[in-house]
Amino acid sequence: MVKQIVNPYEVKGSIDYDKLVDEFGVSKINNKLLNEIEKNVGELHFLLRRGYFFSHRDLDKLLKRYSKGEKFVLYTGRGPSGSTTIGHLLSWVFTKWLADKFDVKTYFQITDDEKFLFNPNLNLTETNKLAYEAALDFIALGFKEENLDVIVNTNAADILYPVAIRIAKKLTLSSVKASMGFNDSSNIGINFYTAMQSVPVFLESIRQKKNVPVLIPYGIDQDNHFRLTRDVAEKLGFLKPFTINCKFMPGLKSNDGKMNASDPNSAIYTTDDEKTVINKIKKAQTGGRETITEQKKLGGRPKECNVYSYYDLFFEPDDNKLKTIYSNCVGGSLLCGECKLMLANKVNVFLKKHQIERHKAKSKLKNYFLKKDFDTIRID
Amino acid sequence: MVKQIVNPYEVKGSIDYDKLVDEFGVSKINNKLLNEIEKNVGELHFLLRRGYFFSHRDLDKLLKRYSKGEKFVLYTGRGPSGSTTIGHLLSWVFTKWLADKFDVKTYFQITDDEKFLFNPNLNLTETNKLAYEAALDFIALGFKEENLDVIVNTNAADILYPVAIRIAKKLTLSSVKASMGFNDSSNIGINFYTAMQSVPVFLESIRQKKNVPVLIPYGIDQDNHFRLTRDVAEKLGFLKPFTINCKFMPGLKSNDGKMNASDPNSAIYTTDDEKTVINKIKKAQTGGRETITEQKKLGGRPKECNVYSYYDLFFEPDDNKLKTIYSNCVGGSLLCGECKLMLANKVNVFLKKHQIERHKAKSKLKNYFLKKDFDTIRID
Repeated sequence: MVKQIVNPYEVKGSIDYDKLVDEFGVSKINNKLLNEIEKNVGELHFLLRRGYFFSHRDLDKLLKRYSKGEKFVLYTGRGPSGSTTIGHLLSWVFTKWLADKFDVKTYFQITDDEKFLFNPNLNLTETNKLAYEAALDFIALGFKEENLDVIVNTNAADILYPVAIRIAKKLTLSSVKASMGFNDSSNIGINFYTAMQSVPVFLESIRQKKNVPVLIPYGIDQDNHFRLTRDVAEKLGFLKPFTINCKFMPGLKSNDGKMNASDPNSAIYTTDDEKTVINKIKKAQTGGRETITEQKKLGGRPKECNVYSYYDLFFEPDDNKLKTIYSNCVGGSLLCGECKLMLANKVNVFLKKHQIERHKAKSKLKNYFLKKDFDTIRID
Repeated sequence: MVKQIVNPYEVKGSIDYDKLVDEFGVSKINNKLLNEIEKNVGELHFLLRRGYFFSHRDLDKLLKRYSKGEKFVLYTGRGPSGSTTIGHLLSWVFTKWLADKFDVKTYFQITDDEKFLFNPNLNLTETNKLAYEAALDFIALGFKEENLDVIVNTNAADILYPVAIRIAKKLTLSSVKASMGFNDSSNIGINFYTAMQSVPVFLESIRQKKNVPVLIPYGIDQDNHFRLTRDVAEKLGFLKPFTINCKFMPGLKSNDGKMNASDPNSAIYTTDDEKTVINKIKKAQTGGRETITEQKKLGGRPKECNVYSYYDLFFEPDDNKLKTIYSNCVGGSLLCGECKLMLANKVNVFLKKHQIERHKAKSKLKNYFLKKDFDTIRID
């Protein structure tokens, strides 16, 4: 078995999430916490019910503040190394749910600098272009202009950099190297970058000139970044950010633990057309048997099936319908071909609507960009 | 004797400039080069004649390009750790002379980020305020708006950062640590900063979309920065910057090899009033003797005298008049008290005019700031 490696720059091995909870020092989301969330907003998103968002830091404390009338803001983001995939969309849809249910504002950071600095083969023009594409996908989810600030790092550097250097001053080379798995042959830019990723945590507090809590939904691979941010927050006199962490959406290939945006054989992109989606899903790894006869006899293995996981995580929010798919699979009556076409149809229905909204977003894109209407330089 | 240390963050010991020439691999400015400069612009600045600007990199090659009709730009700067001193002004006056004589444009970078990141006791609001003050001093020297771009790093980060990360991607932690004398307990910001200092070298080339030569006048303590820049320039497909290096202007105290902007007992500030200047110079270290009788008999020692060096470097451009001061001093007829008052008078005459221009600069400051009228993001 491949050793488990999970950091912002590498995800390898078959992932043991319980082990990550111990290793990273996050807390599992338990039933008590789920009840608290439901109590506050009246319902539970299926990604919470189904354990896709599985761990957190101080979310219980955030809910306590919220229930006493204190608003928070959301902050999430994307590293644009390729086109947006349904894997990204998954956690963004959840972020949108949080934004709606708690009626709070969202900061969305797109790190074209990071992907340029980390990837020897990407130039900045490319990652910047991908950043704009990612912005369209996020806006397409239906955020109101006044409730969303989109940050493309290189474009907003006049706002971000003065905050980033305040963070950077509190982070030694040793701490960043250790957290990120870098060594002295890494470049100075990617080491500095972790400060840039921390900035949105502090923007609303700087804007409002008081401590505003921040909840960050993110894939657990980003945890090292935000552990550093939490340490720095305290040193700078800010609240530690609250976090909620999700698992990875698998890719299309076998042993494809995390959908890889840079690999078209692993990822379904938000811009894929109907035919492409059908072809990709047809080739996807399943938990099916060698022959139809065998499958009818033994049934499929949905727990080892990427196709089933897409229903589970995204395309079948209805628990009863999901249960039916599951039992038909294990019972041998639902075969992989049929199941794949059914999924492809659901994906295409979703993407058709998404692509329309995505297109509409182009004309209003600039309205969503973070504006320099507050000072981040002279704030000491 | 204190060991000689000269890097951007520390200047210590009595400075042996010949040793620095060897150590840093710069070339001494010789008579042949002085003749070349004079041939091109019709005169020689006294700071060249007197060897204050003493070394260079490829200046001969730059003159060859210039004499064939190729224009260059100038780039110099200031780290605002305190108010501007006459030490800073000295090399800026020389830069202004270069700008006028060669009829070229100047980039002036003020590194409020650097001084904040390096100095545990300075906050960013302070260094940013000092940056604006430094800008006034530079503009006061008489630059035309169209010939000067003033860059305050934190304010211009949207233009600088996309170029800085291109540079940063080519600089490993090991190379920056070795050059700057940093270790793993240094912060990630000050390590990244060297990329920010390199950016202005490339701005005119990016603007004009072709390689434009850059000449950087700077104190030799900054050489490590620009050695790194020269390496990176080649890797990025730009011309290596050309350089011309000056010695340090001594401070007012004894063994004060470099005027220290953070120490009012070491520095004369451009904003000092008449009385302050007189008092500071009265207390300055000289090459005088213990008693007046002794000095009348043995004469003073101008070569060991900070007061004399201020005539030499700044306040007596006329070689004949300087010679008279020198011989009257060593002859014992010019005593320190009189000599100091004469200097104080010259400094005050200069500062009075400077302070008027400095005040005028306030209303037009913004006109000089680097404008985002060209793209530094999508340029690959």
